[in-house]
Amino acid sequence: MRICFFNDQRLGLVDNNQVRDISEILKELPAHAYPYPRHDLLIAALPELHDKITALAATAPAIALDQVTLLSPVQNPGKIVAAPVNYQKHLEEAIEDTATFSRAHVRKIQETGLFLKATHSLVGASEGIELQLLERRTDHEIELAVIIGKTCRNVDYEDALAQVAGYCIGLDITIRGPEERSLRKSLDTYTVLGPWLVTADELSDPSQLEMTLLVNDEQRQHANTRDLILDVADLIVFASKFYTLEPGDILLTGTPEGVAPIHPGDKLCASIDKIGTIDVEVKPIVS
Amino acid sequence: MRICFFNDQRLGLVDNNQVRDISEILKELPAHAYPYPRHDLLIAALPELHDKITALAATAPAIALDQVTLLSPVQNPGKIVAAPVNYQKHLEEAIEDTATFSRAHVRKIQETGLFLKATHSLVGASEGIELQLLERRTDHEIELAVIIGKTCRNVDYEDALAQVAGYCIGLDITIRGPEERSLRKSLDTYTVLGPWLVTADELSDPSQLEMTLLVNDEQRQHANTRDLILDVADLIVFASKFYTLEPGDILLTGTPEGVAPIHPGDKLCASIDKIGTIDVEVKPIVS
Repeated sequence: MRICFFNDQRLGLVDNNQVRDISEILKELPAHAYPYPRHDLLIAALPELHDKITALAATAPAIALDQVTLLSPVQNPGKIVAAPVNYQKHLEEAIEDTATFSRAHVRKIQETGLFLKATHSLVGASEGIELQLLERRTDHEIELAVIIGKTCRNVDYEDALAQVAGYCIGLDITIRGPEERSLRKSLDTYTVLGPWLVTADELSDPSQLEMTLLVNDEQRQHANTRDLILDVADLIVFASKFYTLEPGDILLTGTPEGVAPIHPGDKLCASIDKIGTIDVEVKPIVS
Repeated sequence: MRICFFNDQRLGLVDNNQVRDISEILKELPAHAYPYPRHDLLIAALPELHDKITALAATAPAIALDQVTLLSPVQNPGKIVAAPVNYQKHLEEAIEDTATFSRAHVRKIQETGLFLKATHSLVGASEGIELQLLERRTDHEIELAVIIGKTCRNVDYEDALAQVAGYCIGLDITIRGPEERSLRKSLDTYTVLGPWLVTADELSDPSQLEMTLLVNDEQRQHANTRDLILDVADLIVFASKFYTLEPGDILLTGTPEGVAPIHPGDKLCASIDKIGTIDVEVKPIVS
């Protein structure tokens, strides 16, 4: 299944070039008064809703995909966990370019560990990136995004992929500089997730996915997830030693080589095998 | 006002040594279906609920304070932002002790910036700390915690304190080592907040607050917020340049010198002027 949120927080099932409006399904989720749960209730319920979604979609109104505004396919993530320098060639470009990459941050992932991005930074593909702090260098980073489906801690390698609800394309927009990653990468709109969530039953092996990022039709990043230093299962093992992972948590797996600055007016186009393509505009912030 | 959550997520008003059960007030909050808002609705509504809370508390049932289980006074924070090495003497102890403090992390706060802790790490004073990864050195850090009351970005220094809903005692439990702070400090129970929220109308000046942390009745940390390198207003200015701050966001202002390891069985006692005292047990995790 390919699940999306669109327009005014409508829930959709993507079916070729159409979106079936299946927002009725959201009424199946348990009602909650304040305080709210800290994880994503829809992602947690996806397996049990599978048959109802399929049945509803068969008769649901269809809208052309190019007519909808795509929002983040995960609406209530409890956290966004991200992997730094997780492709060897990106580590090498960071080691080489001492002017751009602060020395404190150029270390192996096994030593640096993982970091958090603010959930408030999350947007969908159609919402675009609103650049701030224009005096700072700000780069694109395409990444495979893994959406966690179950509550889990201290996961073994062989059980890791069973914790996954699905996959998306992620953009980890990044200000370069000396500050902690969880500050520089957390501005509003600096995490783009889309175009939809491809459920894990449809994408069972994330280890051979080609990805490409174009800026204004020019190729900037091109890689394959087979070159991840820590693969998807390794990252779930590592993350779950420190964090309790929960349904809806987003795990950004790291970006390959080719990162470069973006500017207002740029048009990004990011694709990952078996997931799809997102077109994302870079805009100046309107304050 | 002193607002707490206790027992089974009951809302309380602390009145001397008693807690008035004012959970009825939660019905005033607007109902939300999934997806839920990303900020804390109660903290956002506190100013307009002030008079209703006072009126309800006058006749609400009272429970002795020492009979209740104190939970986190903020239940739905969108993010926890924290300040590293924000007291000069703590920076000096970190510079001196090269065996304990990884060099990548011993830099001035103006260069390091701020970092995030997972909201899932949050507990109240009575819940205690469940130590994990016992092979790693894990330290106590007492901090003044600032609770943001309004949505704000790019705040000026003179407007900063007007964004504050109130103050709590915070413990930022920390594994030492080379990894990013947002990994090492985000384990479940590694952010303790309590005993209650003291609203800013009752604590208008956070710049002269003495704080003390005892471990098993022995003093380990003792300082005054007048020695903060970046004071509360500076931190709000700094944080709001990168993050949009929202009602319920927790800002941990940094710990003073005297950090040291904790072990299962330890009893922590942390006090801050004009706020109160929390007693927190350190337990081994039951997996």
